Amino acid sequence: MTATRKRVTKAGRRPGRPDTKSEILDAAREQFAELGYDRASIRSIAAAAGVDAALVHHYFGTKEKLFLAAVAVPFDPLSVTREIAAAPADARGRQMVRTFLSVWENPVARTPALALMRSALGHESAATLLRQFATRVMLSRVAPLIEGPDAELRAEAAISHMLGIAFARYVIKIEPLATASVDDLVELVGPTLQRYFDNPE
Amino acid sequence: MTATRKRVTKAGRRPGRPDTKSEILDAAREQFAELGYDRASIRSIAAAAGVDAALVHHYFGTKEKLFLAAVAVPFDPLSVTREIAAAPADARGRQMVRTFLSVWENPVARTPALALMRSALGHESAATLLRQFATRVMLSRVAPLIEGPDAELRAEAAISHMLGIAFARYVIKIEPLATASVDDLVELVGPTLQRYFDNPE
Repeated sequence: MTATRKRVTKAGRRPGRPDTKSEILDAAREQFAELGYDRASIRSIAAAAGVDAALVHHYFGTKEKLFLAAVAVPFDPLSVTREIAAAPADARGRQMVRTFLSVWENPVARTPALALMRSALGHESAATLLRQFATRVMLSRVAPLIEGPDAELRAEAAISHMLGIAFARYVIKIEPLATASVDDLVELVGPTLQRYFDNPE
Repeated sequence: MTATRKRVTKAGRRPGRPDTKSEILDAAREQFAELGYDRASIRSIAAAAGVDAALVHHYFGTKEKLFLAAVAVPFDPLSVTREIAAAPADARGRQMVRTFLSVWENPVARTPALALMRSALGHESAATLLRQFATRVMLSRVAPLIEGPDAELRAEAAISHMLGIAFARYVIKIEPLATASVDDLVELVGPTLQRYFDNPE
């Protein structure tokens, strides 16, 4: 997630050049960070990249898919949230732990995910992108699974717990958490997250 | 927490020079990261810094205090753990949330604490120091407050939840978590942490 951006002259650009995609992604990162997800559009991003909006659609599909590519989220957040939603209501805490850990346990997904956390700690623009990802992509799908009042706040508490587990397990590598089995963590943390899913009233 | 280290020639060094303290701290970071907390000693750190062990004692007192200064933990972890221990057994979850948030809510403590997290995400040596801090200073005092089996693992789960709350609230700044009141978070997260403090059997 670099802030630098190589511009090439429009005269020299042809659709399909190897760097066109990365220029669109650079423009998307700028626009999402500066304008926010709602105000940024395929059209505004295409204009900033100096390409036709149809080309952006061709490469990336929807605005959400372009956003996910721009943030470089190293897993499919839709299948993550779908897995949690597919569990019975009283098993979603455990399912959330299992699904998150299945992503984090894979170094191919973990390494760039940790890089995202690091960028967010160092750069306001990266934090802004991560905030929009968390709100638009994760929260909007997890909060509806939660019953009762304060669903968003409780969804965020659950997500934050998994972020903290990731930091303690894979970055600090504190024992015995670092080498505990996935099953043990599902049993330990799952019922905790379930507290956030259940209606407290 | 920089890895670079300026050495000066021993011939030119006098005790009490303004940079002697920072050289001792540099040597301490190196020794703690390379040897680990147990094997590093005031004597080995003094030798690495080219000063007398008595001078290290004079400046920093005990090995633990030298370690805390080297890791640059921006709060007093002993008073943090003492506050949690002072609460009744069934109120420690809430007290832990309140005590951690009282540290994080203060930008003077928060900014260097987030810098520590960022260092750990980027540098293995920083992660090693943070691991030793978490184990030696925090875990060794929180785990004895926890009843039943797996006390260490449950203490780490509780600590990781607070780290995740910090990341979501102060770095990603996701709403409504970012602007929720401390009291609301104590009520929401406290009973969750209490699950980790209570004997599950």
